[in-house]
Amino acid sequence: MALRLYDTKTGAIRDFQPLEPGQVSLYYCGATVQGRPHVGHVRSAVAFDILTRWLEASGYRVLSVRNVTDIDDKILEKSAASFRPDFQPQADYPAADPWFALAYRFEQAFTSAYDALGVRRPSYEPRATGHITEMHALIARLIEAGHAYPALDDSGDVYFDVRSWEQYGELTRQSVEDMQDAPDVDPRGKRDPRDFALWKGHKPGEPDSASWESPWGRGRPGWHLECSAMSTKYLGATFDIHGGGLDLRFPHHENELAQSAAAGDGFARFWMHNGMVTFAGEKMSKSVGNTISPEDMLAQARPTAVRYFLGQAHYRSQLDYRPGALQEAEAAVERIENFLSRALPQGDFAAVSELPQSFRDAMDDDLNVPAALAALHETVRAGNTALDRGEDASGAAGQVLAMLDVLGLRDVPEPDGGSGGPALEALIHLVQAQLERRAEAKAAKDYATADAIRSTLTAAGVEVEDTPSGASWSLRSGAAHG
Amino acid sequence: MALRLYDTKTGAIRDFQPLEPGQVSLYYCGATVQGRPHVGHVRSAVAFDILTRWLEASGYRVLSVRNVTDIDDKILEKSAASFRPDFQPQADYPAADPWFALAYRFEQAFTSAYDALGVRRPSYEPRATGHITEMHALIARLIEAGHAYPALDDSGDVYFDVRSWEQYGELTRQSVEDMQDAPDVDPRGKRDPRDFALWKGHKPGEPDSASWESPWGRGRPGWHLECSAMSTKYLGATFDIHGGGLDLRFPHHENELAQSAAAGDGFARFWMHNGMVTFAGEKMSKSVGNTISPEDMLAQARPTAVRYFLGQAHYRSQLDYRPGALQEAEAAVERIENFLSRALPQGDFAAVSELPQSFRDAMDDDLNVPAALAALHETVRAGNTALDRGEDASGAAGQVLAMLDVLGLRDVPEPDGGSGGPALEALIHLVQAQLERRAEAKAAKDYATADAIRSTLTAAGVEVEDTPSGASWSLRSGAAHG
Repeated sequence: MALRLYDTKTGAIRDFQPLEPGQVSLYYCGATVQGRPHVGHVRSAVAFDILTRWLEASGYRVLSVRNVTDIDDKILEKSAASFRPDFQPQADYPAADPWFALAYRFEQAFTSAYDALGVRRPSYEPRATGHITEMHALIARLIEAGHAYPALDDSGDVYFDVRSWEQYGELTRQSVEDMQDAPDVDPRGKRDPRDFALWKGHKPGEPDSASWESPWGRGRPGWHLECSAMSTKYLGATFDIHGGGLDLRFPHHENELAQSAAAGDGFARFWMHNGMVTFAGEKMSKSVGNTISPEDMLAQARPTAVRYFLGQAHYRSQLDYRPGALQEAEAAVERIENFLSRALPQGDFAAVSELPQSFRDAMDDDLNVPAALAALHETVRAGNTALDRGEDASGAAGQVLAMLDVLGLRDVPEPDGGSGGPALEALIHLVQAQLERRAEAKAAKDYATADAIRSTLTAAGVEVEDTPSGASWSLRSGAAHG
Repeated sequence: MALRLYDTKTGAIRDFQPLEPGQVSLYYCGATVQGRPHVGHVRSAVAFDILTRWLEASGYRVLSVRNVTDIDDKILEKSAASFRPDFQPQADYPAADPWFALAYRFEQAFTSAYDALGVRRPSYEPRATGHITEMHALIARLIEAGHAYPALDDSGDVYFDVRSWEQYGELTRQSVEDMQDAPDVDPRGKRDPRDFALWKGHKPGEPDSASWESPWGRGRPGWHLECSAMSTKYLGATFDIHGGGLDLRFPHHENELAQSAAAGDGFARFWMHNGMVTFAGEKMSKSVGNTISPEDMLAQARPTAVRYFLGQAHYRSQLDYRPGALQEAEAAVERIENFLSRALPQGDFAAVSELPQSFRDAMDDDLNVPAALAALHETVRAGNTALDRGEDASGAAGQVLAMLDVLGLRDVPEPDGGSGGPALEALIHLVQAQLERRAEAKAAKDYATADAIRSTLTAAGVEVEDTPSGASWSLRSGAAHG
């Protein structure tokens, strides 16, 4: 079976073949860096990280680009607010920051959030404001082709003319008549209220550094334009996959497609959209108070478990968070790790072997991660059964390692787990010595000493569990050790 | 005493007063991201990090900008080489990378190297290729003012006309006659061989994405232009301090100054240059083999000790590396930490107090870090003496913490030290319990048990030292614990 992917534009699962054999070009929408990342952002990043890893595991080279939208109304407003006398410093933005410094601060917050979950960097991460020249060239092509026009009033805006482009609406399969008006501005400057801004004229009071000269007057880019300009600059006029969250399908991606296709570019051959994250079945909302942030999740569970949770649903499904969900993910991760500790007591975690066919089939089927996880847990179960019978399970362990790599579950930095440095090594050594003393005390029926040793370990945060094959231990908030 | 800084341009130490009261604007040259960082890069970053911290400790807000040069001949050459059939993947660049992905990969390597040494991010880190519009505007102003001209041949270059600008050479106090020719290209296109490129015409074979349309033909920025364009965009036409390594003084900074001053900008009010790093007194050189990388240093010593070493000389002096230098730095750091452990046995490392006047005076004197470190070590010595006498030394400890903050020595991530997570907490707990058992055994004259406990600790990498006030311990390769 070869890779098949659901394409939002055609509404069907199609065979995936890249434009250039052996190489996949992938663009997916990153953050507008006007605040800290929320769970939806990191879920999307995990989804496209898994896509990238699966493409690479399938033998493709992947050239991936994720944009940083570093200018928009909110960034400018927040920065302006930070210079007002009544500004209250917040953890998010502790000081008065020019817009570019504010954007850069949040850009770093996004990078940290991705890093904390083992999301690898894309090949390139361009910033919108770095592509003014390319955006001007695209606007000029659209005006020349009769699909864009300078505003009819004196706003200095330039609009895309939706009525001039018959295919407008093709991504979301709706007709112009059914669409909402574009929110940009006063509709008096527009031919049609649904026309959207390619370029926004400079407004009095906005800082000079936040606008650029253009043939249509000083201003700044419209939101949709940057992605058309950057994706085609780095990946070519036609490229393989365009991705993003489902909430970006309309108007953002619809408008991107219209701009690029109307300018004559082939643009994306597949459109992929990941589903939203809900809270106990409901849309998360600050006003309702049913939100959870990536930091909240990381305070509740190990980073690997948070990543497991964020990646476990099918990428097109809603991912529902409810209390307890992260603990279930943690239990699943520990089940896998406990098997690896048993099967590979020497800790030979480099012994990666082939992926099971059931896992490959699942991933090839539009990245069916729930089925892939079922294959992973089945391999763990079978491996444990073999170990219980006294048989070798290193083959199964090698398969498990390979599956974890595709899902990115071995790249999550665990402050206290994994291969962790002299402090952890010393701890492992000392705990082992205490467990040996305890075993000797028990053998000598000196239960007082045995219990005292266990109490000392418990007080230090080391949980001891007695099993038929001896005592095992784990750090209360950390990884299990065999 | 108020802050005084050496200004390269006037060749004198001058009183520093910022243009805007309470706020300092600082631009310093970052990396051309065509390879991994070397020691000179991180030394420069540490120097300007200490400057920033001292300005902040003095009550200023600092708006700092450090550029990323993400296009140049080497980046394009290395990227082109990575696509040739004979390309040998290297740790540095493991795969065929378009120029922008190669630059981004090394940009990340620089960020990691800075992070590993506790160098805080500047307020903003703009990339050269993101400022084509601003560079075009500056070139147009220079042509208009008669200080630049399109090449006399068909190269598509644009040059700065050094003969047209009388002050050319003022930064390095040399006359044009004594200068070397600018290396850019075939001098036939130039009025004078010392004229330098503001814009470089597109050459056949270079990728389309690496050149931009301009009024003078398709091409890419000359190296010097970006810093003039970016510093003034983000900090204003006149700003407080321009910094960089001494090797950038000529031609880079001389040319920046000429461009900006000739265009009518006030530009930098102070020029600060940090000295080079030598190896046993000699210039480091790959061909001689007397080089050491930041990674080599971090393999030899704790990150805090590496940072201490890189910051300990006066920023304008040469910093000489010789074998053993990092171990000396490590001993100095441990002397300080041992004092803190003694003086603050509860680990109350938030109890930062006022800086000693001798330290303030040293820093105000053109950032005299050697004198500031002398003040730090003197405080440690006096504090230890007080403790030996049974007196309280928490005041001295608070001063030491404040001094360490200015020097950035409390922000260096130590994988195994500091406040370090559940594993370290568990370790501290367990070691303490074993040391108590050992003390009880010794009190009961059960030396066999006492020795066995010590052996177990030693085998785990925990070194125990008996002192008059009881046993203290340290991890063999890590921080000391009281």
